[in-house]
Amino acid sequence: MSEYGDAKNASKSGAYERDMNYITDRIEADPGAQWPVEAGRYRLVAARACPWAHRTVIVRRLLGLEDVISLGLAAPTHDVRSWNFDLDPGGKDPVLGIERLQEAYFARVPDYPKGITVPAIVDVPSGAVVTNDFPRITLDFSSQWTEFQREGAPVLYPEEHRAEIDEINGWVFTEVNNGVYRCGFAADQEHYEKAYDRLWTALDRLEERLTTRRYLVGDTITEADIRLYTTLVRFDPVYHGHFKCNRHKITEMPALWGYLRDLYQTPGFGDTTDFVQIKQHYYIVHTDVNPTKVVPSGPDLDGLLTPHSREALGGRPFGDGTPPGPVPAGEEVPEGHRPA
Amino acid sequence: MSEYGDAKNASKSGAYERDMNYITDRIEADPGAQWPVEAGRYRLVAARACPWAHRTVIVRRLLGLEDVISLGLAAPTHDVRSWNFDLDPGGKDPVLGIERLQEAYFARVPDYPKGITVPAIVDVPSGAVVTNDFPRITLDFSSQWTEFQREGAPVLYPEEHRAEIDEINGWVFTEVNNGVYRCGFAADQEHYEKAYDRLWTALDRLEERLTTRRYLVGDTITEADIRLYTTLVRFDPVYHGHFKCNRHKITEMPALWGYLRDLYQTPGFGDTTDFVQIKQHYYIVHTDVNPTKVVPSGPDLDGLLTPHSREALGGRPFGDGTPPGPVPAGEEVPEGHRPA
Repeated sequence: MSEYGDAKNASKSGAYERDMNYITDRIEADPGAQWPVEAGRYRLVAARACPWAHRTVIVRRLLGLEDVISLGLAAPTHDVRSWNFDLDPGGKDPVLGIERLQEAYFARVPDYPKGITVPAIVDVPSGAVVTNDFPRITLDFSSQWTEFQREGAPVLYPEEHRAEIDEINGWVFTEVNNGVYRCGFAADQEHYEKAYDRLWTALDRLEERLTTRRYLVGDTITEADIRLYTTLVRFDPVYHGHFKCNRHKITEMPALWGYLRDLYQTPGFGDTTDFVQIKQHYYIVHTDVNPTKVVPSGPDLDGLLTPHSREALGGRPFGDGTPPGPVPAGEEVPEGHRPA
Repeated sequence: MSEYGDAKNASKSGAYERDMNYITDRIEADPGAQWPVEAGRYRLVAARACPWAHRTVIVRRLLGLEDVISLGLAAPTHDVRSWNFDLDPGGKDPVLGIERLQEAYFARVPDYPKGITVPAIVDVPSGAVVTNDFPRITLDFSSQWTEFQREGAPVLYPEEHRAEIDEINGWVFTEVNNGVYRCGFAADQEHYEKAYDRLWTALDRLEERLTTRRYLVGDTITEADIRLYTTLVRFDPVYHGHFKCNRHKITEMPALWGYLRDLYQTPGFGDTTDFVQIKQHYYIVHTDVNPTKVVPSGPDLDGLLTPHSREALGGRPFGDGTPPGPVPAGEEVPEGHRPA
């Protein structure tokens, strides 16, 4: 998403409210659909920095959709016109040929008036955004793209657990994924303190749940774990200090810390995590919170590689499936951008 | 000191440099001195928030000088005109009768052009600042005020260890006490990163030294421990996040964390520490760093009360002396302002 836009979403009342209006078209397995699944037709535009986009990068990789849906990566920092392709040669996305993601939004809706957000899926032939409905995108990767998934792809949204996954995702979204932003973008002390209490109530609940369970739902990695991971992995490097979510570091919460290390060390998670871009994004883009734009050198993240002992809780990370292979050439997180 | 003034000390080069010009008169034991020691004549003006002033409050209490040198406490937050007495009835210091500390500076030097800093010792009859030379004030409490010290007062600046204490104090001042400010007030990334590396080099050195020694010098609490304590106790609640000193929390440095808990639990240290005022000061006064002025609710500080097991290293906290008695009535840190 556009964090810059987010910062301006603070309501007059002092509380932070996320703009939840999206382009909600879907890409569907039905060949007669408006946007049918089709290998090579769509480009996922994400950003390493963004937790909402990070979900889509993980799911695409776990399911082995890399050859079917290409990946464009916006740069970590941006101005008021939002995400750009400054990291690409010539500052242009090599497939879409655009400098700024807003061009793909304008191709869909001229003068598109809302936030220019990642993740967005772009129809390559027309250059137009099909959807930026992030909670739907990953679920559709699981359910609509089955024909193109790799052999051994895990079931991330299993039928028998959907009700429980949806329930967890519901409150993890409001209380945790968005809860950290509610702390960081609170305009006054009173709203901040309410947001902080809400966040830690939820994290305590997760700590308790994960003390006896390896994963959030069932005994395999599901969509619920992916959605929690992208917030947890950003917590100590960003949310703890930048958003004042500082009751504890995740390293001080035994179950959450073990869970985070377990996932980080699982193919698809740590190998898609870029701490340099994550930190640059938040600390440089949010000048309302960090006017100097100085990016902290800490924290030391090497602990992510330490043994987590979570195997003792049982669980089968990929269920009846298999781990994904190596990250495709050209999509690796640069050396030095993460402990590995 | 005046942190607000500090923030404006950033040089054009981007590095932070502390203004070290002070009013350097001394109060001396010699009865013929310009400012002779005398019970009831002087008032120490400190602020709970300020680490430099906190030193003087600890030393005054350990030495039992409370009945001899009275204590005025400036409020934690202030504007460009610096420290005021907003916490006192009518917003006036009850002894000096002034609303702002600058009045005592002006009584000494009309239109005093430098920072209005705490700690300052004021001559009550004339209402004028005698000295704000903070590194000298505590040493003189030890060496010049011996006649008035309580029975059992510890020797905080022992003759036989002065060279070692001075050496430690020297580099702890530049690398740690001031090192955290150098991180927080760096105007650009390059100067911040240099400051961060310097700080952590020093903290690693202290971690190593304190792994095998209970106190910094000799086997008793000295001036060196007091000067390190006032920075360490502010580290996790303020410097870690606000000043981006975030490689680790002190809770993650085993020797420093044990050492900090040991001192916090020693009379004179924890009982003079006010986390509410400390956090309010930094987060509200430094609007260049924290424009929203929101004060973080965290971190959880209850760990300060947990067993530290430092007794195993030996050491005699007060040497041949004794711990101070209870905090004098009226000088207690308010309930809820610290774990106790």
